Amino acid sequence: MTLLSERIRPGEVAVEIPRPTDAGVYFIGRIRTPWATSGECPKRGRRDGEICRIEVDPFWHPALQGLDKHACLQILYWMHLARRDLLQQNPGGGGNIVGTFAIRSPVRPNPIASSLVDLVGIEGGTLMVRGLDCIDGTPLIDIKPEFCPGKHRADDQNAA
Amino acid sequence: MTLLSERIRPGEVAVEIPRPTDAGVYFIGRIRTPWATSGECPKRGRRDGEICRIEVDPFWHPALQGLDKHACLQILYWMHLARRDLLQQNPGGGGNIVGTFAIRSPVRPNPIASSLVDLVGIEGGTLMVRGLDCIDGTPLIDIKPEFCPGKHRADDQNAA
Repeated sequence: MTLLSERIRPGEVAVEIPRPTDAGVYFIGRIRTPWATSGECPKRGRRDGEICRIEVDPFWHPALQGLDKHACLQILYWMHLARRDLLQQNPGGGGNIVGTFAIRSPVRPNPIASSLVDLVGIEGGTLMVRGLDCIDGTPLIDIKPEFCPGKHRADDQNAA
Repeated sequence: MTLLSERIRPGEVAVEIPRPTDAGVYFIGRIRTPWATSGECPKRGRRDGEICRIEVDPFWHPALQGLDKHACLQILYWMHLARRDLLQQNPGGGGNIVGTFAIRSPVRPNPIASSLVDLVGIEGGTLMVRGLDCIDGTPLIDIKPEFCPGKHRADDQNAA
C-alpha cells in the first residue's frame, strides 16, 4: 500500500503499532472528489466547497431510506493512504511538535475522518454533498444525520 | 458476544453482512460512564451532562501532548454491543420504518459513535469530559480537537 507519507519530519515520534486490530470496519462505498492527491485537497471541507459524490454500494441502498429528509449529514470515511504509527507530529514542518490527538491530521492510529456536509441531492445510491476534503476514491464508512450550525433540518424547511 | 439487541422489531430489515471486513481499528482506551446498560444512557450526550472519564491506554499517552489547549473535542468510540446487520429500523417500535443511515442508532454496519464533548480536565492519560452517551466500558477509537458551537478554543480563552 502506498502511504500518504513515509517521511518522518524532525521531532516526530513513530512507534511499532499493535497487531492485530481489535475490530473490523466495512467499506460501504466510495467518495468521488475533484482531488487526486492529498496536496490538492482542501485542508478541511467547507460547506460552500466543491460538490462531491458519495457512491454507496448497492448492498446498502435500503439503508438510505429517509435520508432525503435531512439537509445536513455527518460523513465518516477511512483515510486509507495515511500512516497510523505517529504519536507526535510536526505539522507543516515548522517545529511545533504536537500529539496526534491534538490535531486533525489524517495520520492517526485509526484514520477515520469526520465531516459535516450539506446534502445537495440524491440520485439512487449516490449522494451529492458539499463539505468534504478527501482524495478521490476514499472509502466511505458511515452516514449519519446531523444538526448543523446555521442549518435547519430539511424536514422542517420543506416537509414533503 | 452479547449484542445490544438480537430482537428484530416489526418491519426491520436484517441482512447477512459481508465477511471479512475491509480494515481494522485499534481500541486505544476505554470510556468510563455512570451508565451500565444502554437503557440508562442518555439518548444523545449533552454538554451539560454527567462528567465521564476517557482512559487512554498508556501506549498512546504521548499522542495527548497539547490536547489541554482545546476546550472542545470530538470523541469517536466503538459501540461494541450493537448489532451491525440492520438496513432498516423501527426506532422505538412505533412503526416508522427508516433507513439505518437516516438515524443515529448505534445499530449500523460500522458501529462508530461520534460526540462533541467539553474537556473539563486531564489527569495523566485520563480525560474528564461532558457530552458522552455510552455505556461504561465502551472502547475508545479516536480523539480530535473540534470547534464547538458557542465555545471558544481554550488557547484563545486562557493562553498558557
